[in-house]
Amino acid sequence: MVGRRAGNIYGDTTFEQFLPQLKNRFPQVEIELYQSNIEGELIDRIQSAATHYDAMIVNAGGYTHTSVAIGDALADAAARGLRIVEVHISSILAREEFRHTSFVAPHAEGSIMGFGLNSYVLAVEALLI
Amino acid sequence: MVGRRAGNIYGDTTFEQFLPQLKNRFPQVEIELYQSNIEGELIDRIQSAATHYDAMIVNAGGYTHTSVAIGDALADAAARGLRIVEVHISSILAREEFRHTSFVAPHAEGSIMGFGLNSYVLAVEALLI
Amino acid sequence: MVGRRAGNIYGDTTFEQFLPQLKNRFPQVEIELYQSNIEGELIDRIQSAATHYDAMIVNAGGYTHTSVAIGDALADAAARGLRIVEVHISSILAREEFRHTSFVAPHAEGSIMGFGLNSYVLAVEALLI
Amino acid sequence: MVGRRAGNIYGDTTFEQFLPQLKNRFPQVEIELYQSNIEGELIDRIQSAATHYDAMIVNAGGYTHTSVAIGDALADAAARGLRIVEVHISSILAREEFRHTSFVAPHAEGSIMGFGLNSYVLAVEALLI
Amino acid sequence: MVGRRAGNIYGDTTFEQFLPQLKNRFPQVEIELYQSNIEGELIDRIQSAATHYDAMIVNAGGYTHTSVAIGDALADAAARGLRIVEVHISSILAREEFRHTSFVAPHAEGSIMGFGLNSYVLAVEALLI
Amino acid sequence: MVGRRAGNIYGDTTFEQFLPQLKNRFPQVEIELYQSNIEGELIDRIQSAATHYDAMIVNAGGYTHTSVAIGDALADAAARGLRIVEVHISSILAREEFRHTSFVAPHAEGSIMGFGLNSYVLAVEALLI
Amino acid sequence: MVGRRAGNIYGDTTFEQFLPQLKNRFPQVEIELYQSNIEGELIDRIQSAATHYDAMIVNAGGYTHTSVAIGDALADAAARGLRIVEVHISSILAREEFRHTSFVAPHAEGSIMGFGLNSYVLAVEALLI
Amino acid sequence: MVGRRAGNIYGDTTFEQFLPQLKNRFPQVEIELYQSNIEGELIDRIQSAATHYDAMIVNAGGYTHTSVAIGDALADAAARGLRIVEVHISSILAREEFRHTSFVAPHAEGSIMGFGLNSYVLAVEALLI
Amino acid sequence: MVGRRAGNIYGDTTFEQFLPQLKNRFPQVEIELYQSNIEGELIDRIQSAATHYDAMIVNAGGYTHTSVAIGDALADAAARGLRIVEVHISSILAREEFRHTSFVAPHAEGSIMGFGLNSYVLAVEALLI
Amino acid sequence: MVGRRAGNIYGDTTFEQFLPQLKNRFPQVEIELYQSNIEGELIDRIQSAATHYDAMIVNAGGYTHTSVAIGDALADAAARGLRIVEVHISSILAREEFRHTSFVAPHAEGSIMGFGLNSYVLAVEALLI
Amino acid sequence: MVGRRAGNIYGDTTFEQFLPQLKNRFPQVEIELYQSNIEGELIDRIQSAATHYDAMIVNAGGYTHTSVAIGDALADAAARGLRIVEVHISSILAREEFRHTSFVAPHAEGSIMGFGLNSYVLAVEALLI
Amino acid sequence: MVGRRAGNIYGDTTFEQFLPQLKNRFPQVEIELYQSNIEGELIDRIQSAATHYDAMIVNAGGYTHTSVAIGDALADAAARGLRIVEVHISSILAREEFRHTSFVAPHAEGSIMGFGLNSYVLAVEALLI
Repeated sequence: MVGRRAGNIYGDTTFEQFLPQLKNRFPQVEIELYQSNIEGELIDRIQSAATHYDAMIVNAGGYTHTSVAIGDALADAAARGLRIVEVHISSILAREEFRHTSFVAPHAEGSIMGFGLNSYVLAVEALLI
Repeated sequence: MVGRRAGNIYGDTTFEQFLPQLKNRFPQVEIELYQSNIEGELIDRIQSAATHYDAMIVNAGGYTHTSVAIGDALADAAARGLRIVEVHISSILAREEFRHTSFVAPHAEGSIMGFGLNSYVLAVEALLI
Repeated sequence: MVGRRAGNIYGDTTFEQFLPQLKNRFPQVEIELYQSNIEGELIDRIQSAATHYDAMIVNAGGYTHTSVAIGDALADAAARGLRIVEVHISSILAREEFRHTSFVAPHAEGSIMGFGLNSYVLAVEALLI
Repeated sequence: MVGRRAGNIYGDTTFEQFLPQLKNRFPQVEIELYQSNIEGELIDRIQSAATHYDAMIVNAGGYTHTSVAIGDALADAAARGLRIVEVHISSILAREEFRHTSFVAPHAEGSIMGFGLNSYVLAVEALLI
Repeated sequence: MVGRRAGNIYGDTTFEQFLPQLKNRFPQVEIELYQSNIEGELIDRIQSAATHYDAMIVNAGGYTHTSVAIGDALADAAARGLRIVEVHISSILAREEFRHTSFVAPHAEGSIMGFGLNSYVLAVEALLI
Repeated sequence: MVGRRAGNIYGDTTFEQFLPQLKNRFPQVEIELYQSNIEGELIDRIQSAATHYDAMIVNAGGYTHTSVAIGDALADAAARGLRIVEVHISSILAREEFRHTSFVAPHAEGSIMGFGLNSYVLAVEALLI
Repeated sequence: MVGRRAGNIYGDTTFEQFLPQLKNRFPQVEIELYQSNIEGELIDRIQSAATHYDAMIVNAGGYTHTSVAIGDALADAAARGLRIVEVHISSILAREEFRHTSFVAPHAEGSIMGFGLNSYVLAVEALLI
Repeated sequence: MVGRRAGNIYGDTTFEQFLPQLKNRFPQVEIELYQSNIEGELIDRIQSAATHYDAMIVNAGGYTHTSVAIGDALADAAARGLRIVEVHISSILAREEFRHTSFVAPHAEGSIMGFGLNSYVLAVEALLI
Repeated sequence: MVGRRAGNIYGDTTFEQFLPQLKNRFPQVEIELYQSNIEGELIDRIQSAATHYDAMIVNAGGYTHTSVAIGDALADAAARGLRIVEVHISSILAREEFRHTSFVAPHAEGSIMGFGLNSYVLAVEALLI
Repeated sequence: MVGRRAGNIYGDTTFEQFLPQLKNRFPQVEIELYQSNIEGELIDRIQSAATHYDAMIVNAGGYTHTSVAIGDALADAAARGLRIVEVHISSILAREEFRHTSFVAPHAEGSIMGFGLNSYVLAVEALLI
Repeated sequence: MVGRRAGNIYGDTTFEQFLPQLKNRFPQVEIELYQSNIEGELIDRIQSAATHYDAMIVNAGGYTHTSVAIGDALADAAARGLRIVEVHISSILAREEFRHTSFVAPHAEGSIMGFGLNSYVLAVEALLI
Repeated sequence: MVGRRAGNIYGDTTFEQFLPQLKNRFPQVEIELYQSNIEGELIDRIQSAATHYDAMIVNAGGYTHTSVAIGDALADAAARGLRIVEVHISSILAREEFRHTSFVAPHAEGSIMGFGLNSYVLAVEALLI
């Protein structure tokens, strides 16, 4: 559920290139990527995730700060047992003030932000520890 | 630079008990603990850290949200080359609104919050990746 | 236009189970359900509703509080003669402050909130009185 | 507990004329009207209502938005088992921003607003469903 | 409808002493004083005033800044033809910020404030000009 | 001037039961109880209190946070020599943010809050020390 | 010091036509009109007024709400003995919220607003009473 | 990327009717219309636009004021060389305060608003000058 | 009514150099330039413009965000039939937050901002279309 | 934990002089004074107090309004069974608005403020009742 | 560019008397006084100053807090090499909150406030050091 | 009482190097440096300063904006006759908005900011004039 912007920010490495590295690093984990710019599709996916997955690493991009609806869907999924980790490529606390709110964080075990694509590595670690 | 509160929140494991585990997990890293409730002593330590350490994992506790002075010291240390990672045991974005500000984050590479004492494990990982 | 969350909050009765009851209760009314998590699809539906329906019972879920675009679409539909009733399963005025705003209410005849799925029963009543 | 303003807004029908209609519509319910412009008398009535009634339909008029004291009395009454439904003749969410707060809503089962005097019909329905 | 405080602020002259002077000054006007500390009684009086008087000089004291209910009653009375002039003994715009709001002003022809008891003299003048 | 709510919060002991205890504890003091839900009656009492009493223990309940008019009356009474102590059964500083304002405090010698009915005991002590 | 807008709002009567009426009404008073759209010229006039006039009727138009500099000049003039009355043709308390502030009011004896050009008549009365 | 609302506001001329006129007026420009109510589809389009077009005229409708995600996508597209002009049919600065923010403007060369469908004519002019 | 700053921002072309180009481009239009740093002179000009011109292109510079008085003058001029177009050389919506308010926009047909001196070209176009 | 300022405000009696009086008044209580200007030392003391004392009377002075860290320490100590009473020499609710917040109050049984050094007497009483 | 108010605040010494003292103290500096109450004339002067002077000591009086236009002119002048020092006779940080903003400071080398007319002495010193 | 950061900002000259220069420049003054990062130690020093010094030049660094406690200590010291001058190396009015508040300024004779280490030179001048 990573926004495509990752690729642009991270020069040579796009998320598509990064995903195999991530899978190689954690061979014991089945990792599936879902990516959409459509808020409602993200919500659909969150709603179905509780049934099909153990955990979800969420990078809601710009929706993080505005989407009450994604927050509600995550609250629901967490109540149904889905483990959730919030991830941001850059640190939302170090950017504009309108980014200091997260509708994801209250429903996540924890948040990791600012480490670039490595934020995803750390998020998988967080689920495995 | 971990507040003592950690011990109380984390039932049986105090930070004192946790530190050896942390060191064992990362034998290749020299880890030194500094802990103080005194804002100015934390600032002293931040000021000297840039000379003596490669990196610093900062959990500024309640000072995170109020201490312009710690923020200024970290800005200075980062400018002198110290790598900084922000850590919180619980997620500040999931708590009261007055905790949604961090004077640490703008000067850190990234922030990790909400994973309990494991936030420290992830912080060391973040420095090693 | 009911969010799926209804099913989760109302234990044994999902909206799917509830819909036949609603139809039975009001045999004189043709009731059609439209449900989507995608803001833009809701807007599409609102835009076409003025042509095909007499009235619309709107539960915009989390979008209620954030979607200027849904509000604009409803304003337009109301100007073209569509009757609109706003419904919420729980009371938005009794929850977090960011839910005390509704972009639906200014364009609805009235709002009914807090009575669970019965809010829909009352909404149909409101259109029939 | 309906403010007299109802009569003025609703052209030909005053609340006095409307009350018999309401009673006729729900012959199985004993309905008693209490009306006062005095905040403290409303509070007195709320305090005694928990002892003498099953439920209370509350239209606190302008006090809705300002009276912490009515809110406290309702909280107390609800804790003692009184069922409470909030009613407004016009929609408070569609009017000036200072009307978007309700000290009644947090203590009511639900709120119905905007349907004119029919808001009372819907409120009785809500208690009977 | 003058608060008793007038008497205390204006040293030797209480409103009771002042009223005959006011009547003497305007022999052509029938002036009636109504005074109450009870918000709801003021509202009662405002509601009946539209039937019995040509005009009303309103000093709502502390209620000026907080009473949505008095504002609603005045709106109603003005719509029924009552002329309304707002009066304050001291200038609310020159005092604490929470006094810079008036729920009376939007329904009054005009407002006169800061001239002590003479504010009443000017208010009668305003109605006679 | 204690709100009736006291009785409900304090299980077995109502304020009526508590008053004799209070009188017994301070036999040297004449204590008179005045209790009303009507803001204006409280104001009446405050206005007359300066003439008939040495001191007043004020628990303005929900009006504490909203009543500019009670604040004005207390200011007036204090100026005429009445000693005033503010009391709250629970701590207003530990509750919702809209309770962090007091229109009583600026005119009182001091404030005591959070000690239940014992707040009244401490208030009498405060006047006797 | 009346803005030209008066003329446009008051249909047939411009301020130029109104001035002779005002002078006729108060033959015992010497009235001089000063009118400028330039904030600094108004300030110049206020600064010199304390030397040459007994009193000043100030309608600062749109500058009322924004001009700290006019406020400072009036403060200075008032301290040097000039009597000041604030006048507005329409009621600033009944218009947009950004008009609810007055940098004139704190330095005036009182304020009169909402009575059209008659606000000036009342202002002269206020100075004569 | 024009919302359908345009058609409704502009009486007889819908955007569909207007588009040929726009193309006729600028025969030297290839104009392609993309229109969607779905925020994420707009983002998809913005992301691909930088590859396929020289410039983009953006009317983000209600999303203008709320969509951090569209803003992020535009920032990215602008960084990749796409020229962007913001257009609004009515003037967002002349409407409700919540419309005074634009997540589009910071990434656009300029903004044109309030000229109805002619805003689009001016936008093309702006790109051609 | 262009601020002199234009010249400084636009390197080689000052507004003085630009004006002839503007006139050449629109030979069918009589264009007159008025430029002043004095708020009141701008107001004088706005007041007289309704009598002497068909339309006015307004760049109020820094006064855009602060001048209630200019806004009032424009409202008056617009009511008397003057066509008004707002122009800014840079985009006020893309700059500091205190520039996101315009006292000009509510009285203008539309606003054009961000296109440098070409904003004036587009403004003339807007009046001619 | 009393700030030295007490001595300056209370003319002849410094806290040092007052302490023996306090001890004399309550011979049955062991009273120990701890005083520091250093926020972190106060936190150290709060952390150790839960182990060594039954109760703590806290006057956090200026830190009351700013120290999230002291609040966190008190929360922790209260959870470990320490009784806490908040004391202020002057009434924080009657002073500047930035003093209307207390990070101490939410963790204290109650708060006593405004009675000068007698606030301490009342605080001990509160613990003994 | 000193407001005339200086004279009134500083008892016996007016700025006119002070200027020669200032010149005597710094015989090596050519000092020229410019004083106006008209915002636009101050802007004119700032615009021309960059051409004719090395440095400018600016006391913008009440305009300091409101004049975006003066701020823009100073930004422009500073960019063209003029040295700027901000001066205030009294300390704006120690007065009302609306004075805590300065549109001058961001464009000045530094600010000196609170030392009365000596603020000017210090400002010249600052330019000479 | 200068924070160490000075040294870092001012390239080659640290405050340690600067101090002798400062002493040389003012041989007639005894200058003592006190420097601490610990808020409470600064408060201790302020409290004792009134007894041992004539004046104090205060650069409270980041504490300037947050320390109510330092403000209270300075108020107390000023009341006991200590002269206080506030100094900042960079201009707090030209930086982030959270730096526009000073708890030092209300208790200082004046403030000097933005002139680098020369701010200290000017501060000594200010005390000597």
